Amino acid sequence: MAIIVQKFGGTSVGSIERIQNVANRVIETISNGNQVVVVVSAMGKSTDELVNLANQLSKNPSKREMDMLLTTGEQVTISLLSIALQSKGFDAVSLTGWQAGIETEPIHGNARIKAIETENISRLLNEGKIVIVAGFQGITEDREITTLGRGGSDTTAVALAAALKAEKCDIFTDVTGVYTTDPRYVKEARKLHSVSYDEMLELANLGAGVLHPRAVEFAKNYSVALEVRSSMEFEAGTRIEEEVSVENNLVVRGIAFEKEVTRVTVVGLPNGLNTLSTIFTTLAKNGINVDIIIQSMTNQDVTNISFSIKSSDLEETLMALDLNQSVLNFQSIEHESGLAKVSIVGSGMISNPGVAAEMFDVLASNDIQVKMVSTSEIKVSTVVEEAKMVKAVDALHTAFELGSEVEQTV
Amino acid sequence: MAIIVQKFGGTSVGSIERIQNVANRVIETISNGNQVVVVVSAMGKSTDELVNLANQLSKNPSKREMDMLLTTGEQVTISLLSIALQSKGFDAVSLTGWQAGIETEPIHGNARIKAIETENISRLLNEGKIVIVAGFQGITEDREITTLGRGGSDTTAVALAAALKAEKCDIFTDVTGVYTTDPRYVKEARKLHSVSYDEMLELANLGAGVLHPRAVEFAKNYSVALEVRSSMEFEAGTRIEEEVSVENNLVVRGIAFEKEVTRVTVVGLPNGLNTLSTIFTTLAKNGINVDIIIQSMTNQDVTNISFSIKSSDLEETLMALDLNQSVLNFQSIEHESGLAKVSIVGSGMISNPGVAAEMFDVLASNDIQVKMVSTSEIKVSTVVEEAKMVKAVDALHTAFELGSEVEQTV
Repeated sequence: MAIIVQKFGGTSVGSIERIQNVANRVIETISNGNQVVVVVSAMGKSTDELVNLANQLSKNPSKREMDMLLTTGEQVTISLLSIALQSKGFDAVSLTGWQAGIETEPIHGNARIKAIETENISRLLNEGKIVIVAGFQGITEDREITTLGRGGSDTTAVALAAALKAEKCDIFTDVTGVYTTDPRYVKEARKLHSVSYDEMLELANLGAGVLHPRAVEFAKNYSVALEVRSSMEFEAGTRIEEEVSVENNLVVRGIAFEKEVTRVTVVGLPNGLNTLSTIFTTLAKNGINVDIIIQSMTNQDVTNISFSIKSSDLEETLMALDLNQSVLNFQSIEHESGLAKVSIVGSGMISNPGVAAEMFDVLASNDIQVKMVSTSEIKVSTVVEEAKMVKAVDALHTAFELGSEVEQTV
Repeated sequence: MAIIVQKFGGTSVGSIERIQNVANRVIETISNGNQVVVVVSAMGKSTDELVNLANQLSKNPSKREMDMLLTTGEQVTISLLSIALQSKGFDAVSLTGWQAGIETEPIHGNARIKAIETENISRLLNEGKIVIVAGFQGITEDREITTLGRGGSDTTAVALAAALKAEKCDIFTDVTGVYTTDPRYVKEARKLHSVSYDEMLELANLGAGVLHPRAVEFAKNYSVALEVRSSMEFEAGTRIEEEVSVENNLVVRGIAFEKEVTRVTVVGLPNGLNTLSTIFTTLAKNGINVDIIIQSMTNQDVTNISFSIKSSDLEETLMALDLNQSVLNFQSIEHESGLAKVSIVGSGMISNPGVAAEMFDVLASNDIQVKMVSTSEIKVSTVVEEAKMVKAVDALHTAFELGSEVEQTV
């Protein structure tokens, strides 16, 4: 019998009625002759409510105690889903993270899974039970309760699928799959039948928001077949797997974008081995996430370094750089806000050297100036004016034929 | 340094403000140079809310899953109290039942504590931490989460006090101590300075409701010094300990009472060795709690057996007896509802044979007919008309001089 892991997020289990729906989805999978392990998050807003209670007591509650507090959320869901399945005549059993054998690093609030002891789950599956596991949580060697940080339940599901050698891992969510771009902005956006792990990673990092990058990485490393699908509708979702069948010979698979980007340029830095390291170590220490980094060496004694950040981090970035002026010896700092990042993503780019050129051509012919460029093997990112972001996405979506209906007949 | 265990019930931790109050009480005890272990229940109505969620899914949810669900309640409280203490600058750490080493029988919903592994708590106390333990919950040898049933947090506190050889165990509650009788009915009711374990057991069983009998038994077996006190007010409470100083030579320590009692009499039973066993096994199997049982053997071939039950159990009792008529061979069944039980409790009775007689005398002179009598070494219980219950309690309270103010000057 094949083992299937199914993960349902907070919205999917947000009410008693929705928990009943989830139970029905699980029963459907059981009825097809599979063994099922279900991973669930906390119900809807319950995590926010717990955080709110803690914040009434402390502005900065300890991460250990927050883990203790928040892990009750999934524990409530697993027992309720188990009760729902039992009341429908199915043999279900709920397990907390530690009962499921999920061992993590000793880091509160953002631990990584170190190992999974599957003995308990395997025994219960072999007894014919539906096993329901609390997502997002684990236990350290010292029996301390930890949480996995954002997207933690996705990671729990993928890690369990890997450890149990599951046939597949379904991620049920409030969207029906992964789209060529955000359908709220581009009405031609189309659901993809499949994407590769790397494409998904780029799409996730760029804000598609469907799956946490850590979970995708985990799935890639252990070759776990994922499917992102809707918990409300019964249509097929998007498969995420190693080898994606070439659909229409599409070189570009999707277009991601992100608002509120600011470019910062440090002008007139002396060429030195430690310059890059000093700048970005300083920013990292101040908790500032830098996205694109551009430096082009010249033969001159001084150089410029540009990077992009979230606009909300600008003030802190400038302060951190100023404080290090004596070490860095730069001449001045320029910055430009009101920008956005637009990226095209697709594994096919590796063998199609003209894709970046085509992108620049499309943008230019739409009167959109490119402020920064960054390329990887399967992605080209550009920074443009935020006011022209949607226009850029629209033009690229059309130019790369992502709205094509052909694929949907597959 | 002395270890003190302090237990706070659901009402005492029912809001963020009250959790702050509890933190202050704990800090006061720490500041007096003690090591403190705190045991807490779930916040106010949170258990009811969880039960309500489960009942929307199933009329009869499994006890295992209810344990999984309900134990989140105390887990929320321990983390919040820990956060409150930390925000006031004190080093606190919360522990779930299993982290605190509380091992129970493998019975869901009503487990007894088998052992406590104190290693973890002792280490944390020696590191100078305030240890906050989730009441009501434990873990089986097979790592299943269990609950201790009603009054479970009291039992957790007493068991921890015994295992840690604590100097005392404070039970904070919404009353200021143990009273000579219920002050809602008798305005002369007076708080006792101390009662013995056995007296407390009789008072608890008879509905004083302050401490769970299982916790008192545990305290007696391990000689744990208890004090019942108010979480809102700072006055001293009632000590529960082995040797109670004789206060005013009071023979009777308190008067307990209970409404909605029904007397059932099985008439004309053949005298046989198995008669009693058959009747009460039948009732137990039907979940009917029998309180007083009276049988007086005669030289005749037939006998009568009377017992008291809760009035709400009458219908089921009659049905169970009827179904066993062929085995029991009784002639008929009589029953009388609208009764109440009134009991006097006090260790001093053992050496004062006239106490029961005095009780009957007081009742008779107040025109109160005694329908049933049952005596133990430290208690005399009578069943009377419910309409005369308060009159009986009042008269006995006065007759045994329980309203006396003398004790309060100690």
